[in-house]
Amino acid sequence: MEPGDAARLGPGRAARALPPRLLLLPLLPLLLGRGLRAAAAASSGAAAEDSSAMEELATEKEAEESHRQDSVSLLTFILLLTLTILTIWLFKHRRVRFLHETGLAMIYGLIVGVILRYGTPATSGHDKSLSCTQEDRAFSTLLVNVSGKFFEYTLKGEISPGKINSVEQNDMLRKVTFDPEVFFNILLPPIIFHAGYSLKKRHFFRNLGSILAYAFLGTAVSCFIIGNLMYGVVKLMKIVGQLSDKFYYTDCLFFGAIISATDPVTVLAIFNELHADVDLYALLFGESVLNDAVAIVLSSSIVAYQPAGLNTHAFDAAAFFKSVGIFLGIFSGSFTMGAVTGVVTALVTKFTKLHCFPLLETALFFLMSWSTFLLAEACGFTGVVAVLFCGITQAHYTYNNLSVESRSRTKQLFEVLHFLAENFIFSYMGLALFTFQKHVFSPVFIIGAFVAIFLGRAAHIYPLSFFLNLGRRHKIGWNFQHMMMFSGLRGAMAFALAIRDTASYARQMMFTTTLLIVFFTVWIIGGGTTPMLSWLNIRVGVDPDQDPPPNNDSFQVLQGDGPDSARGNRTKQESAWLFRLWYSFDHNYLKPILTHSGPPLTTTLPAWCGLLARCLTSPQVYDNQEPLREEDSDFILTEGDLTLTYGDSTVTANGSSGSHTASTSLEGSRRTKSSSEEVLDRALGTGDQPVSSRGTRLVFPLEDNA
Amino acid sequence: MEPGDAARLGPGRAARALPPRLLLLPLLPLLLGRGLRAAAAASSGAAAEDSSAMEELATEKEAEESHRQDSVSLLTFILLLTLTILTIWLFKHRRVRFLHETGLAMIYGLIVGVILRYGTPATSGHDKSLSCTQEDRAFSTLLVNVSGKFFEYTLKGEISPGKINSVEQNDMLRKVTFDPEVFFNILLPPIIFHAGYSLKKRHFFRNLGSILAYAFLGTAVSCFIIGNLMYGVVKLMKIVGQLSDKFYYTDCLFFGAIISATDPVTVLAIFNELHADVDLYALLFGESVLNDAVAIVLSSSIVAYQPAGLNTHAFDAAAFFKSVGIFLGIFSGSFTMGAVTGVVTALVTKFTKLHCFPLLETALFFLMSWSTFLLAEACGFTGVVAVLFCGITQAHYTYNNLSVESRSRTKQLFEVLHFLAENFIFSYMGLALFTFQKHVFSPVFIIGAFVAIFLGRAAHIYPLSFFLNLGRRHKIGWNFQHMMMFSGLRGAMAFALAIRDTASYARQMMFTTTLLIVFFTVWIIGGGTTPMLSWLNIRVGVDPDQDPPPNNDSFQVLQGDGPDSARGNRTKQESAWLFRLWYSFDHNYLKPILTHSGPPLTTTLPAWCGLLARCLTSPQVYDNQEPLREEDSDFILTEGDLTLTYGDSTVTANGSSGSHTASTSLEGSRRTKSSSEEVLDRALGTGDQPVSSRGTRLVFPLEDNA
Repeated sequence: MEPGDAARLGPGRAARALPPRLLLLPLLPLLLGRGLRAAAAASSGAAAEDSSAMEELATEKEAEESHRQDSVSLLTFILLLTLTILTIWLFKHRRVRFLHETGLAMIYGLIVGVILRYGTPATSGHDKSLSCTQEDRAFSTLLVNVSGKFFEYTLKGEISPGKINSVEQNDMLRKVTFDPEVFFNILLPPIIFHAGYSLKKRHFFRNLGSILAYAFLGTAVSCFIIGNLMYGVVKLMKIVGQLSDKFYYTDCLFFGAIISATDPVTVLAIFNELHADVDLYALLFGESVLNDAVAIVLSSSIVAYQPAGLNTHAFDAAAFFKSVGIFLGIFSGSFTMGAVTGVVTALVTKFTKLHCFPLLETALFFLMSWSTFLLAEACGFTGVVAVLFCGITQAHYTYNNLSVESRSRTKQLFEVLHFLAENFIFSYMGLALFTFQKHVFSPVFIIGAFVAIFLGRAAHIYPLSFFLNLGRRHKIGWNFQHMMMFSGLRGAMAFALAIRDTASYARQMMFTTTLLIVFFTVWIIGGGTTPMLSWLNIRVGVDPDQDPPPNNDSFQVLQGDGPDSARGNRTKQESAWLFRLWYSFDHNYLKPILTHSGPPLTTTLPAWCGLLARCLTSPQVYDNQEPLREEDSDFILTEGDLTLTYGDSTVTANGSSGSHTASTSLEGSRRTKSSSEEVLDRALGTGDQPVSSRGTRLVFPLEDNA
Repeated sequence: MEPGDAARLGPGRAARALPPRLLLLPLLPLLLGRGLRAAAAASSGAAAEDSSAMEELATEKEAEESHRQDSVSLLTFILLLTLTILTIWLFKHRRVRFLHETGLAMIYGLIVGVILRYGTPATSGHDKSLSCTQEDRAFSTLLVNVSGKFFEYTLKGEISPGKINSVEQNDMLRKVTFDPEVFFNILLPPIIFHAGYSLKKRHFFRNLGSILAYAFLGTAVSCFIIGNLMYGVVKLMKIVGQLSDKFYYTDCLFFGAIISATDPVTVLAIFNELHADVDLYALLFGESVLNDAVAIVLSSSIVAYQPAGLNTHAFDAAAFFKSVGIFLGIFSGSFTMGAVTGVVTALVTKFTKLHCFPLLETALFFLMSWSTFLLAEACGFTGVVAVLFCGITQAHYTYNNLSVESRSRTKQLFEVLHFLAENFIFSYMGLALFTFQKHVFSPVFIIGAFVAIFLGRAAHIYPLSFFLNLGRRHKIGWNFQHMMMFSGLRGAMAFALAIRDTASYARQMMFTTTLLIVFFTVWIIGGGTTPMLSWLNIRVGVDPDQDPPPNNDSFQVLQGDGPDSARGNRTKQESAWLFRLWYSFDHNYLKPILTHSGPPLTTTLPAWCGLLARCLTSPQVYDNQEPLREEDSDFILTEGDLTLTYGDSTVTANGSSGSHTASTSLEGSRRTKSSSEEVLDRALGTGDQPVSSRGTRLVFPLEDNA
């Protein structure tokens, strides 16, 4: 109890330290309420000789009442979701596409929010409060001696002195307000895991370089541009006298980070429904999935930026590099955690015969994926980011080891969880617009933010696409760029990041603005997707497994169209080199170790690890040289496609004269190939036509695995 | 803040009022910890001019550390479950049957419990405590003014004065201890719903009367016998001087109620695996599912028994009838809630074309089933009981309206949830034996309890079976009775009821005893099931759709074997009358209204509700007079089977000369029939053989639906 280690904050800053409102997790009082009730009931049953039965009864009644209210508030959300489901069924049934289920969930949330805000009486809370004003340290646990009995209390948070009365004002509004960490620890993980697990792998990996560029560089660019523009807006507001409290440059950058997480959920749903161009889908989806992760880590890094010394809001190189270090550390740590859990799951499912018992397999899969989150949190990394990479690893390796039943089980399980969580968040957003009691509506800031995100998105998409096109074989056309520009919606992640901390004035203004941006983009942009698609002449009704038509743009780049030609080739060479390295490593070592597919390790590993190779290679590989399944064939098909487009020749139809493995039976209707050598050989012109003569050598240099 | 409405408890009883230990829900601090951390980080980022940055950092570190520990403790449970899954796979793989997964989960839990108890240092908690000794009322929310800042605290529970120091003793033990309401509000609902949803309906309804008798009468008998025996044991302990605190008669009855909930999970798993006799399976499963519900409501009613006046532990008729009223009220209320939600779901899935979108359908099904729980809790009934009846209703009606994909989705979803929850509870039980810090081991009480549950089970199975056999057509043979006697295991429900309140000495002793009873019965009895099955000559390898062989015992009853004959006939007649009434109501009205099957309502409803009937009847019924699916045909097959056995003739093979509907195509390999009239006609001898001549008339009196 030394005052030395106390968390002493200046009284003037009380409002910023912790969320001043009592943010309740509805599930929790549900638990505690019942506990109190049962205990009270039990004690009153046994406490015959006590005269205070009436008082106990009062406590019991109060606890029961509180529990009932919690149930009602949770029930409200469930009914909201039920209503959303039924309405969205009607929309789907009638093929109405202008409003997505998330937009609908927000509307219903809004309506219920209005009813709760204006329709329920502002009852004073059942909880009375007690002030004891003698200590100067806030502990997380408090023991209170009440006439000989000791009661234990836990810290909920700090309250600003002015809010003490308003906290108790409306019970119903309080009950429907969640602890913001619910979003991060309960609702986001299934959404993010599902995104990782359902990445359309083939097209995702084909566009991996561009996706990474958009997600990392693009998000950083967008964050800094939005941050700086908003700082200008804030300066302007100060001059005009519209700003009533502090708003630092780091706050502006933080806003840039949270609002840079795009979530084109409605656009992608329409893409999926209309079977729009798969490459554009992969670019948009991949970018939005990865930039969620980038935005989380970026915002933590910005929060961690604390310059030393007196001038604490000037630029400090040391603090800056510390922030960059934190960014890299958290990101790579979370990535590693996710990948490691995925790999462990893959190994377990490979080396046990768990696939005979789909229930056990599914349960294991679920537990391992959940443990990623906890492991990352326990190690101080970011659980949500780890879960994303775990999802990708599970899809890439573990999925191939699962039994057919478990595949559909796991997919469906996470699909349902994702659906419920996503619609829950969006209906909560609608509700929050009216039930959240500390909104700071600043028209200047809001208009500035809309302009800033527009400019930020433009400054991110067009220049990056230009540079990417220099190195890409399939150029990202103007219509694709416009569509990506248009699809910069904001969604669940921006909301979750914004609501996480609403203690200060600046954060409250950010939260309100984020909410409005999400509403606007989801409704207006979501509704405009179908017209936009046809206006931009983007192909719809594409079979996802079909190849894109030969794109003339690629020749343009190949044959060199200006001074950029040499540089373009270098970029291409580099990305191809990186890609090839990873691909051959994955195909020759990782896939054979972690799954039942790929070439036997005995052929790919050096001779001196023969024993190890035999242990790790699964018997299936020897038995049938198992053809890769459709799901496995992402890399190979990708390269096949590239070859086809590149050389402008029909290599795939030529058969495989240079094939090492007996794979004639595989040249059927399904375009699957069994080993990398085959594809590489073809690409290298061992087929009928010397494809390599037209520059494919840059893409597939000869592999020397004897 | 009037002291008048304060919950004043005598200081001597402090230990009983609320659980004295800080029972933590691991998820919750996970949320709050992050909240504190983020907020602290945010505030420290913005609080440059404040000099207390170091102190904030300390708080932040502490919150982070706490969050990390929570993640680690949850991770412990996940690893435990993973280990259990892998080991149980090994056992299943090697066909080891002596240990069920739940038994294994307990063993692993035990091991981890030992490690946590003796392997971790008894660190003092990070939370310091603060005493303020000036008020005499414990509020659920506390505002503490710490040098100008206000902190909000919530009530955790009361602590007995002697335990104040020990509460803080071992952080790790505290972290792995759950709020007992987690079991009731999170873990039990999916288990119970799954039980209801997966009742093998055909055999369940065939034995409905007996199951209800065992579940209601049997549990009541068992509860009172165990309660009275234990009261004797307690008296004995008082004489011997083994009892150090109060132990009332109501406590004994409460113990009887919680320990009467059987859970033959291991026995049923073996039955399922070996395809043991389906009727015995239905009897055991049905009894255990329903007596869980009975035990919950019974224990609440016993707690609510509060005699008025001075002599508070004597018998009080008014209080007794009030308890009975509470029992009936809660039970029927919960039943109604469950049935209503199920019926609403059935109507929604019938009248919308939601089945085109299995994801929406599954999500709706999940939400509606969850809302049952909340609805019942909000209305003051018991959520777990409501969920059970909701599950049965969903299985009976809604399931038939679902798309094929949703059927498997919902089944698999709840199967996984059930599996995880069940194994979680059992591994928690293992853990609790060592980490729970207030065990009261009383050898006399424990031995007494074992004897009492044995006698209670015997007094419940044998006499009830005798009376049931008087009215049953398939007699419950001696071997079945012995097997039911043997299968009286105790499991998750007994544990959840016992841990719900461990405030008083008596309740702690009960909890310890319950834990040991669960351990003993799950391990020993679970392991002995296979030998017992063969020793009792119970059929295994039965096709669930196959009919049991004609049972000679039924003739014994039919032809009258003593003075009981008349009475037996009466019982039979009554149950048949009730059964027939329900069956025809269900088949003629409920099924056509709630599902797409059954006869058109236009034929079963009176003419004046023709419009309503046309609206409610689905077009499918007219189109194809859709044959009932296998899942639907429980009642009909039941009666068909009865007819077969009863009349000792092969009615089913005779075709359906008296059939009203054109159902010749249905007489194929699947024994489905399309309408009740057909079956009734057959039963009434309109078939080739006059079956009714041998007493079947009692079972199926002529139905006059013209």
